[in-house]
Parts: sequence; structure tokens; C-alpha cells
Amino acid sequence: MSTVEELQKKIRDLEARLAASASGDAPVRQKIEIMSAEVVDSNPYRTLSVAVVGVGGVGSVTAEMLTRCGIGKLILFDYDKVELANMNRLFFQPHQAGLSKVDAAAATLQNINPDVAIDAYNYNITTVENFQKFMDTIRTGSLTGGPVDLVLSCVDNFEARMAINTACNELNQKWFESGVSENAVSGHIQFIAPGETACFACAPPLVVASNIDEKTLKKEGVCAASLPTTMGIVAGFLVQNTLKHLLNFGSVSYYLGYSALTDFFPTMSLKPNPQCDDSHCRARQAEVRARPPVELAQEVRADDSPLHTDNEWGTIAQLSLFEAIIGTDFMRRIAVVDEHVPGDDVSNLKLVEGIQVAYSIPVDNSTPESSTGGAVAASELSLEDLMAQMKSM
Amino acid sequence: MSTVEELQKKIRDLEARLAASASGDAPVRQKIEIMSAEVVDSNPYRTLSVAVVGVGGVGSVTAEMLTRCGIGKLILFDYDKVELANMNRLFFQPHQAGLSKVDAAAATLQNINPDVAIDAYNYNITTVENFQKFMDTIRTGSLTGGPVDLVLSCVDNFEARMAINTACNELNQKWFESGVSENAVSGHIQFIAPGETACFACAPPLVVASNIDEKTLKKEGVCAASLPTTMGIVAGFLVQNTLKHLLNFGSVSYYLGYSALTDFFPTMSLKPNPQCDDSHCRARQAEVRARPPVELAQEVRADDSPLHTDNEWGTIAQLSLFEAIIGTDFMRRIAVVDEHVPGDDVSNLKLVEGIQVAYSIPVDNSTPESSTGGAVAASELSLEDLMAQMKSM
Repeated sequence: MSTVEELQKKIRDLEARLAASASGDAPVRQKIEIMSAEVVDSNPYRTLSVAVVGVGGVGSVTAEMLTRCGIGKLILFDYDKVELANMNRLFFQPHQAGLSKVDAAAATLQNINPDVAIDAYNYNITTVENFQKFMDTIRTGSLTGGPVDLVLSCVDNFEARMAINTACNELNQKWFESGVSENAVSGHIQFIAPGETACFACAPPLVVASNIDEKTLKKEGVCAASLPTTMGIVAGFLVQNTLKHLLNFGSVSYYLGYSALTDFFPTMSLKPNPQCDDSHCRARQAEVRARPPVELAQEVRADDSPLHTDNEWGTIAQLSLFEAIIGTDFMRRIAVVDEHVPGDDVSNLKLVEGIQVAYSIPVDNSTPESSTGGAVAASELSLEDLMAQMKSM
Repeated sequence: MSTVEELQKKIRDLEARLAASASGDAPVRQKIEIMSAEVVDSNPYRTLSVAVVGVGGVGSVTAEMLTRCGIGKLILFDYDKVELANMNRLFFQPHQAGLSKVDAAAATLQNINPDVAIDAYNYNITTVENFQKFMDTIRTGSLTGGPVDLVLSCVDNFEARMAINTACNELNQKWFESGVSENAVSGHIQFIAPGETACFACAPPLVVASNIDEKTLKKEGVCAASLPTTMGIVAGFLVQNTLKHLLNFGSVSYYLGYSALTDFFPTMSLKPNPQCDDSHCRARQAEVRARPPVELAQEVRADDSPLHTDNEWGTIAQLSLFEAIIGTDFMRRIAVVDEHVPGDDVSNLKLVEGIQVAYSIPVDNSTPESSTGGAVAASELSLEDLMAQMKSM
């Protein structure tokens, strides 16, 4: 016969195990050196540190993919709580409703792979105080106390993207931006190397045109409910290009779009704007210009990206966005070249089918049919007007 | 002060909750009519039934996406057990090691969305007895006792794909094939409508050329470890096109490939082979030919696919694969047209960059550099040779 004390101890033990199980932070194996000798002989990811800002529909899957690859360290930022309304995206489960997203994600991920070092920060990076903490963490967050290897933006608003951009320009930190349209029919990723590519403040953000023929969307809720697919695909693109960049294999896409309705994948790359509002961006550009040409060429092509080369896919151009947007024929001169259309070159620029700026420019009422994927002529707007509109997103 | 009986009852209750929690089958909410009124106003998926054959790296994520969309009924087939070696793909977690994949998946999915009806079959569909059970389930597995709305093949071997193909030709059941290369650098999905498109037996299976420059893959294990990304992306393509087909929006891709190293996405479509080995395929083709032309045209274009039309993307051709592969210039005449390259037409056929047959044809030693993405001249091989090679995969 058990004593009351023994039974009460057993109850406390069971309650602790149940709580741990419910929160997902009960690892069922200890850390091991190699996850599975049957699948990989070595883990090239174990020394790498990646920060994921935003742990929602894209960021949570991004973090899970990196965790399952065996990344060395993950640093998660978010300040939302898990809600039942998030169940139409991957990753979070109903029992996590009410928990902070970073804590819930960290518990699940640590359970999946105890070998990953996971830091979780439950705050909004856009406040003055938190922005400095965010900067410090990016600058010192690697496994060896230096800067992280990459920052992945998986946030859902302009202000947070601009905060990441500001921090990464100042820290000379490479990062990827990502996004999914509200109706879930398109998404994109964009690689930003300060001084080498257009930063997020260099130009109005470009997104994939939805090209929705409304009559093909006959049922309510179709698009909203395909969030797990579109967000999963964008997370896959983001992590795949992260791995290509960090491990130096394949070709990193500087901008890769996804149009779900047509399975269309526009790609492009953009030079920085010499008159970017961000002084750190301009300083990075000056540093890049000051490098010996050979060194620069090697760096730009370190990932075997086909920039500035003639190859089997056709001529690829990396163009000055500033030159492109300052003109009067804004839309037709945006420097966007589909990497897979042979025969295109700098003298034959046009806005690639499927890419448009992220905000709407007022339509000239006299030409209601002039839209191509939502982008319309903006010849009446100055660069200042365009930038102002962007900032009010 | 608690009595011993009260404490013992509490222990039994806690043990039961802990066991349920560990097995993942403890729903934390009851079934509700609509998952979240904040996100979708209605659920167009709730009447649909989909069978997922193979619940591995692609199939498990496919099932999770459909579950989170609120599909009416999921039918899962697999006969493997979860292993720790599977943790480098998404979905399964370490505590599920040792469980059957279908049971572990069903428990997790039911927990995520209690509204989905889930049937799990833990057997190998390729044995004679199980094949008949599989056929019967596909034929009667919908929510109303009729055929399922779609079959999704997420298996990893030729024999299982051919079993699905045989069943679907006999049942006149539309299905999607999917695949990921062993090194995880490419994948594809393919829509098969018996009698309307090439079936899996009509031609050697086409896969995405890996185009691997070995010198860019400097580190061991890079490719194997990117399984969660490539498999997640292919699952996303599979479910997105499933939703487009079932809910009749956007354009369904008949074949969509993914090359991870270059972010290249070849698309194509193929007519059936009039001399296909599968007699049910030939019978379905005869039924399609017997339809009034207008009806056929409507059916083929029911999803607004750009087949047989001139549109803004350029001329799209749907071609006879039989005509293409029976000639002496096999590789150059495979009927593959990239839908996004303007100016191509039937008179200008070539194998699209990035697609090749799934098996290796012996290389003529006198021309060791003749390979394009691994596909080589096959002018010495008869159709019978090609089909025999395919079957020995």
C-alpha cells in the first residue's frame, strides 16, 4: 500500500511530465553528435547561426527546416502569441494556443533536434529599446560570439522589414527578405547583400503580380485557405537559398517570385540605389566600389550566380534600379530581367510578367484597362512621391 | 487532506492524459463547423476526399497541408514505420519512432484538425491481395461512398507508382504523381487524367535534370540534408495544384519540375501513347476520342489551362509522346515545351533544359561529352528497349 506522500510525489512527477509533453519541450533523446549516419555522413550546418525574425506561417516552417537540417544555432524573434486562427498554416498545433510563438516554436524545435542551440526573443524589434537589443544580438549571436551568418526576415509588415534593413545595413549583415500575399496566391524571397544589391530602402518593394482572373475564383475562401501551401513553398525557397548561400553550392536567387495560380517563377537581381535614403546603405556601396575590381567580381560570383555573364540561359543583366525608376516611363523601365528568357538584354528592358511594385499607384481613370497585373503607368509621379507611398504601406 | 483513493484516481487520470498526449491523439478541442471565421468565411474543401499514397517526406506534409485547409476526408496508405532517420524531413517527431507512419500521421493530423475524416491503411498496395483492397478503397472511399476526388502518389519507388497507375487507369481516376531525387536537388509533380494525358506507363518517366556541377558541391552531405526543403516545396506544389484542380481556379500544371540548384521550374504537358502497354489506358483514350469535340475541348480547358491556345505566354503545345519517342532521334524529339518560352511551336521541338528521362541510357563511348543534363542520344534503342529499361528501375 502506497503512502499519501508517495502518491503525492508521483502526482507531481506526472503533472510535470504532462506539462512538458503538452508544451512539446520533452526531448525523447539526448543530444547526439550526428543525427543519422544512414542519411548524412557529416553535418556541414552545425557551425552556422541563423536569425529568423517572425515566427509565423513562413518563419516557423523556415525554423523547422533549418532545425531538421541540423543548423548549429537558431535565434528566433517574434512577439505574437499562437492562436487557433493560425492553424490554417503549418507548424503550430492547437494545444499551443496562448503560448508565445517563439517559446512554443523553440520547445517543438528542441524536441525535434536537441543538438540545435535555440535562443528565443519575445519582443517587437521595432521599438527603440528593442531595436538596439536586436542589433546587439545579430552582431554577437553566432556560436562563437560574432555576427550571425544570416538573417531571415519572415515578418508580415513594412515597419519590421525596414527595421531589419536598417540594422543589416549598419552591421553589413547579409539577409533574405520574404513575403506572401494576403490572399496567399503569390510570394517571394529576396537576397540583400548591403552595398552589393538593392537594399529594402533603395526602391519600392517588388512583389509578384497576382494576375487573378476573378472569374476563376468562384468559391469564397479558396485563397485564404491555401496559406499552408504558399507559405510552405516560400519557406522552402527561403531555406534552400539560405543553404546554397551559406554552403556555397548551386546558384542563389537574388529575387525569386512564385505565382500560385500559374506556377510562374520570375527571377531578377537589382543593383543598389546610389541615392538610397539609408546612409549606411550608401556607405556600404562606397565600400563595394572601393574594392579592387577582381575581388569584387569574385565576391559577386562566389555562389556561381550567373550575374553579368552570358551563359546557356541567355544574357543576364544586373541593373541600376535608381536609373530605372527615376525616368518618366517608370513601369516599363524597371530593371527586371527574367533569367530564363534567352535573347533579353539591357537594351530590351521591360517589367517581367508577374512582378509589380508592392503598393498601388492611382490609376488614370481614362484608361481603366491599362493595368498589367495591377501595375499602372506612373509617369506623373516623382521618385519622392513613390518613396513616400512606399513608406505609408 | 486527500484520501488515498482520491490520489490514486488522480494518478490514473494523469497517466491516461500523459499516454494520450505522448501518442498525439488527444485533441484539445472538439470538432467545430468552421475552423476560424476570422480567416475563411466558408470551407470549400469539406466535401472533398483525397487519398495520399505514401506518407513519407512528401506525403506527410501533403496530408498536413490538406488537413489544415480543412479537406473533408483523407485516406492514408503506407506500410513503413517512423524511424529517427526520418527526422531530416518535415512532419514526424522523434517520439513517434517505431509507430506505423499512417497511425502516427493520423494521430497528429486529427489533433491538428478534428473535423477531417481520416482513414489509415497500413499495408503495401503492390501485393495482389492489397492491390484489390486499394482499388476498392479508391472506388468507394469518398464521404458519400463513391470514388475519391483525387489520388496523390507520394511513393518512392517505381513498382508502387505503376500500381497506382494501373488502378487509376482501370477506375478512370485522376491522380498526381510526385517525386524527389535521391540527392534532394530536384523534384516534380505530374497530373494524370486517364485517356487525356500520358499515363505513367505511356512513356519513360521524366524527371528534372539535376545539372549538378560536382565542383559546386564541396561539402559532403549537403544535398541529403536539404530533404526538408525540397520535399516541402514539392508537397506545396502538389497540394496547390490539387486545390486548383479540385476547386477549379487558376491553371493546373500537368508537369511542374523544380531544380533546387538553379531555381528552375520546367513545365510541360503530354498526350497519351496510343500503344500504351496498359489496356485500360488505351480504353480511356478511346473514350476520350469518342467524346464530341466541343465537350472534349471544354473538359481539357475546364481549369483554364493554356493548352492548345495562343496566349500572352506564347504558343503552348500538347503533343503526342508516342510520336515523339518512336523516332530515331529520341531525345531531341521528346514532346516537351516550356510554357514560358515565347515563339516555340510544334515544328521547333526540343527537350527543355532541365528535363530528362528517369533512367540512364548507355552512353556511346565515342561521344563522352554528348550529355545534356544526363540525357543522351538513344537512337540505337527501340521503344521496347526503353520500356524494358524503365521497368527495371
